[in-house]
Amino acid sequence: MTEREESPTEEQARDARFVGSARERREDPALLRGEGQFTDDIDAPDASHLVFVRSPHAHADVVEVETARAEGMDGVVAAYTWADVEASDAHGRMGAPTERLNGDVPGHPVLADGRVRYQGQPVAAVVAESPYLAADAAEAVAVEYDRLDAVTDAAAARGDDAPTVFEGCPDNVAASGELGDEAATDAAFADADRVVDLDLVNNRLIPNALEPRAALARPEGDRLRVDMTSQSPHGHRSDLADALDVPERDLRVVAPDVGGGFGHKGHHHPGETMAAWAARRLDRPVKWTATRSENYLAGAHGRDHVTTCALAFDDDGRIRGLRAETDANVGGYPLGSSPLLPLWYGRLLAGQYDVPAIHCVTRSVFTTTAPVHSYRGAGRPEAIYVLERLVRRAADDLGMDPAEFRRRNLLPPDAFPVETAAGATYDSGDYEPALERALDAVDYETLRETETRDDGRLVGVGLASFVESTGGGFESGVVRVHPDGGVTAFAGTHSHGQGHATTYAQVVADELGMNPDDVDVVEGDTDRIPRGTGTFGSRSVVVGGGAIVESAREVREKAARIAADELEADPGDVELADGEFRIAGAPERSVSFAAVAAAAHGSDRPEGMDAGLEATSFFEPERSAYAFGTHAAVVAVDPETGEVEVDRYVAVDDCGVRVNPTLVEGQIHGGVAQGIRQALHERAVYDEDGTLASGTMADYKVPDAGHVPEIHTEHTVTPSPTNPLGAKGIGEAGTIAAPPAVVNAVVDALAPYGVDHVDMPVTPPRVWRAMRDS
Amino acid sequence: MTEREESPTEEQARDARFVGSARERREDPALLRGEGQFTDDIDAPDASHLVFVRSPHAHADVVEVETARAEGMDGVVAAYTWADVEASDAHGRMGAPTERLNGDVPGHPVLADGRVRYQGQPVAAVVAESPYLAADAAEAVAVEYDRLDAVTDAAAARGDDAPTVFEGCPDNVAASGELGDEAATDAAFADADRVVDLDLVNNRLIPNALEPRAALARPEGDRLRVDMTSQSPHGHRSDLADALDVPERDLRVVAPDVGGGFGHKGHHHPGETMAAWAARRLDRPVKWTATRSENYLAGAHGRDHVTTCALAFDDDGRIRGLRAETDANVGGYPLGSSPLLPLWYGRLLAGQYDVPAIHCVTRSVFTTTAPVHSYRGAGRPEAIYVLERLVRRAADDLGMDPAEFRRRNLLPPDAFPVETAAGATYDSGDYEPALERALDAVDYETLRETETRDDGRLVGVGLASFVESTGGGFESGVVRVHPDGGVTAFAGTHSHGQGHATTYAQVVADELGMNPDDVDVVEGDTDRIPRGTGTFGSRSVVVGGGAIVESAREVREKAARIAADELEADPGDVELADGEFRIAGAPERSVSFAAVAAAAHGSDRPEGMDAGLEATSFFEPERSAYAFGTHAAVVAVDPETGEVEVDRYVAVDDCGVRVNPTLVEGQIHGGVAQGIRQALHERAVYDEDGTLASGTMADYKVPDAGHVPEIHTEHTVTPSPTNPLGAKGIGEAGTIAAPPAVVNAVVDALAPYGVDHVDMPVTPPRVWRAMRDS
Repeated sequence: MTEREESPTEEQARDARFVGSARERREDPALLRGEGQFTDDIDAPDASHLVFVRSPHAHADVVEVETARAEGMDGVVAAYTWADVEASDAHGRMGAPTERLNGDVPGHPVLADGRVRYQGQPVAAVVAESPYLAADAAEAVAVEYDRLDAVTDAAAARGDDAPTVFEGCPDNVAASGELGDEAATDAAFADADRVVDLDLVNNRLIPNALEPRAALARPEGDRLRVDMTSQSPHGHRSDLADALDVPERDLRVVAPDVGGGFGHKGHHHPGETMAAWAARRLDRPVKWTATRSENYLAGAHGRDHVTTCALAFDDDGRIRGLRAETDANVGGYPLGSSPLLPLWYGRLLAGQYDVPAIHCVTRSVFTTTAPVHSYRGAGRPEAIYVLERLVRRAADDLGMDPAEFRRRNLLPPDAFPVETAAGATYDSGDYEPALERALDAVDYETLRETETRDDGRLVGVGLASFVESTGGGFESGVVRVHPDGGVTAFAGTHSHGQGHATTYAQVVADELGMNPDDVDVVEGDTDRIPRGTGTFGSRSVVVGGGAIVESAREVREKAARIAADELEADPGDVELADGEFRIAGAPERSVSFAAVAAAAHGSDRPEGMDAGLEATSFFEPERSAYAFGTHAAVVAVDPETGEVEVDRYVAVDDCGVRVNPTLVEGQIHGGVAQGIRQALHERAVYDEDGTLASGTMADYKVPDAGHVPEIHTEHTVTPSPTNPLGAKGIGEAGTIAAPPAVVNAVVDALAPYGVDHVDMPVTPPRVWRAMRDS
Repeated sequence: MTEREESPTEEQARDARFVGSARERREDPALLRGEGQFTDDIDAPDASHLVFVRSPHAHADVVEVETARAEGMDGVVAAYTWADVEASDAHGRMGAPTERLNGDVPGHPVLADGRVRYQGQPVAAVVAESPYLAADAAEAVAVEYDRLDAVTDAAAARGDDAPTVFEGCPDNVAASGELGDEAATDAAFADADRVVDLDLVNNRLIPNALEPRAALARPEGDRLRVDMTSQSPHGHRSDLADALDVPERDLRVVAPDVGGGFGHKGHHHPGETMAAWAARRLDRPVKWTATRSENYLAGAHGRDHVTTCALAFDDDGRIRGLRAETDANVGGYPLGSSPLLPLWYGRLLAGQYDVPAIHCVTRSVFTTTAPVHSYRGAGRPEAIYVLERLVRRAADDLGMDPAEFRRRNLLPPDAFPVETAAGATYDSGDYEPALERALDAVDYETLRETETRDDGRLVGVGLASFVESTGGGFESGVVRVHPDGGVTAFAGTHSHGQGHATTYAQVVADELGMNPDDVDVVEGDTDRIPRGTGTFGSRSVVVGGGAIVESAREVREKAARIAADELEADPGDVELADGEFRIAGAPERSVSFAAVAAAAHGSDRPEGMDAGLEATSFFEPERSAYAFGTHAAVVAVDPETGEVEVDRYVAVDDCGVRVNPTLVEGQIHGGVAQGIRQALHERAVYDEDGTLASGTMADYKVPDAGHVPEIHTEHTVTPSPTNPLGAKGIGEAGTIAAPPAVVNAVVDALAPYGVDHVDMPVTPPRVWRAMRDS
């Protein structure tokens, strides 16, 4: 891997000792030794185990649920149906943005309230002394269903003949919205030299975290503690408090080690909620752990957009306007804000380009499939896929090199901050260097001239230039100095693989002139952290890091006042490094940080200063930080079989100041792997009865190492002005850029056959058929 | 019980809805139902149990410790001696203020390091699968001792023939100090019309908390969690971190329900420390629970002052000066700051009086007895006992009524703040009303004229006017508003019976215009609270309450800004009551506190305002608040047997603003009961070999209900300017006032016999002997 370090901002960053350093992850030793403590690893004395009875049907009335036989079985503690929940003091539904939906739609009930709306929906729950006894007893619950017609496709669900998912929402359109200026866009299209259009499917995906979702709920004093696989412990506490109708302060949510999330561990699902409900009812610990199959069936899915789109441009390659109309599948129930999420995807439709007019119409549509919610990227991959496929199509239409087409439309570095026609305001950017580096690194010119390899496979190179909005919402950060000088930093984000403990410790260490090893980082416990928004949307370093930096600076300022008092100097004259405060120009006079910490908690504080040495910040950037980059994929397509191999992959990313380059690259590698697999393999498939056909890892095709190419990473550094670290998020870049880069490469390879599009996943049959049909 | 409510400050307090209200303790229902969770109640999976082998000798060299037989017994996990601790990475000693002691004195080792210095000192420890197996195995540990001479009396330990406790401190004087002005006092004594003197013993006491000390130490992730009977969880975390040589951040100390403390649960003892050391070493939970006998033998004792004192005064009753010289027994080891504590007792020697000159010399002396440290009152009872006994003696010398003698010397209400000749600065006071009320309530004039009752018993009335320094050090307080409007208040103090959850909730409720039931209070967990000093020295409401009020006010101010924004009003114009913000003069416009809380965590905040609704304060009063009062005891003495009965007791206290009068009275009742028992019954007795003769409840004579008289309480209210509540502490008043009040009453009863003093405890033989010998 090449790493070029030449930007002036990187130069400045060298002042920092640890920010910018590729330190090893402090999380790894325990995980590699098998000492991680994941939710299902937690032993609670007297724990019972909850297993769901799930609907085999996508759409049906539940006529009768008979639990008597199950209740009589050995080791069974209880069996519950909706009637039990309804009779309790909890309303038992996942929150939904009711007032913002088209129609009267109830929240997802923890157990079916008389109807099921997707295969796998929980209908009853059995609690037993072991998970095996519970599973056996769940088999013994008899449910009588009256089947109804299924509908799995969003566009079809809007049709007149489609079954109605909710009576209060007869057309199945949960929510709809538009972005941009329709009249201006119409005018641009009318005036432009050329228009290209595409019908695109952003294939439905299923998150495959290493660890399935799980929860262990148990009474803790008068309160309830829920350990769970969470990306957002405070968010889940709010969700659970809502569903259980208890005050938030009576709940403690703890997220221990979490093995991946990709979004679905930030959502409010029935499993965790039912475990919490049952633990309160039984006054004993209840554990629920999803099987891998249950995660496929009933964990929130992602993507599933069907889009008709068009790009208007002139003969010189200048883009004039963009139109998109999307049906987004939200599945059988709203899950939190899931129906509203697709309405905002269009905000990124300008990408890196100066697009004068944009109009985007989106409908979120109920179908009888599992709920769909944000999945790594959460709208950004959908937008960039539309844009970058159109860009390629337009370049081909003009016969212009796609790189050159991009160059002609890039927003110039002096344009920032800039508001796009899609309504997004970009903070900073310098796009062309990343594009040129990607071209250089992939040996673009040579590839453009190569049609086939020696083995006869067709060669293609595809580009994707993208922006990624990162760092929304607020986060709390506490930096606490103990009397012995040790430091603990608390953040409301939660690492589920990101390595925040490593990153945040580097950040605090620089601010407090100490070694990262002397900084503890705490996340994932609502009892220890003021408030958290969580880890998603590439926000943690930007927002959580920002909060921690603000607190660390406040701590440093107070510490400096104490040190100055001790050294009989002006606070402005003391410098902190290597655990010592020194007077500038008189380095022999010093006081240790530990002595300052002791003084802050003792009686040697400066007159009038409060005791303690800690600070709490709630940081929220005024606007999002827009990471960007250009990725290039090289594919080889077997003309005999249609099989596509990604041969090489170049990722040039700019996420502003990089706190830990190794972790940044890890994020890029993982995202690219996921993006390539979306492009080539992954797809949730429902049959027409609404039965999930891709319900196992083998059927669904998760990425494996053999299918991930060598990934070459480079970077530029354009700091963000939105946060004290100058950082931009990097968690989703790969999933955004890789799908269009790979599909563009396939189209490039198939150019001799006149193929202008192949839908994702680009499987051999589809390629073969496209070659044949063109 | 009469309660007069007529002071103007009480009038002002009626503005507050809940401060001043005698609400029931929210702690009681669970405790009364047996649902309290005390340390020994906690079940930890795989817990092992630690039992000490304790020295039967007061002073001996430990020649050999043989643990092999114990280690071979069923269920024994390990047996440890000092050699194991010494070879570990922990220094294993209780901290001591080494540099401030006279000589080279090591800290108390968790296991004997070659010598034992008090009966009951831990010599070895056995860990086994059950406490019974551990106790059996401890019996099997063979220890060979080489006995040395014991010395149990502080004055004797200073003698030339006394055995040396520490070689580095040959005269056994651990520390010494003086207060006041010797020359001025000498001059006052030379110039005064009269001088009286007394030799006084403040008898050695042993704390008798309902719950003995206990600890359960267990690994929690990479850290160690120690649940323990603590008055000061953060203080104990610092102590444990020190003894174990680990960073504070690697320890979590939790104090669950704690059944009384009286000081000794704030100290750093071997038991809790050894459990923590063993849990780290074994990497499994280790529980240690003191037996009642062990608490007698080796829990820190209290008092044990021997004082020679004198008062100089003029014929008109005006006090001219006071002298005191004290030997304070600190036992066989320093325990934290224990040798320094007695050096400050003299600060209260002026009491309520204008004493122009004071000189006090104090020596803390090592003896071969259990360590002595602060016990409810912690120096205050010792000082007031000296003063009030001298005052009585002086009045008798003059033939003046003791109440009149006091009146002539009281500091006048316009004197405050005032610095006494003993170096204390009193914040506020109005002493005469409390004195007069006490006289009135006890029917003083009648009693003064009564020599005997109809049953022939001698009647006596005794007074004690006192001040009590309260509220030292800092405390942290967090007030956190959750998004649903619920409130949690966190304080660094820890209730071990005081009812802080009730009190603090009242305080927060008034500040935030809500009901106390909607305020949760959290104490006792170092992971949830920024930093704590603890509950002792009558400081919790003053300092912890002050910190919580400061935070609540900051929260209210921010909430008002949000409400004003919502109501389009000026923040100064919105009022908060009953959970609603309203505009003054336009009550129909309102926004709920819960809606404001939601807005603070959402996106509807006023421009530029940080998210969140919480505040953290570190509050430290600039100086102590001095509570005061006058107590009166009425005794009947049987001239045949010398038996003393306290017939009636009047307590008039002024602790400034009283947050919850019921809890204030509870503190007075408990303290008076303890004080009466010190006066009449309690005493730790060592024989000349240093064997504790009073090692059981029956031998030691703890208070029982039958010996506690009717206690009549009244109060005045002189707010303290030192803290936002205007409160003064009340936790120790009874233990301060009751001993001199009772002894003065006994002397009053025995006046016909010419008895001018009887030492505490005033037992029948002593009374009988005094009557005979006078």
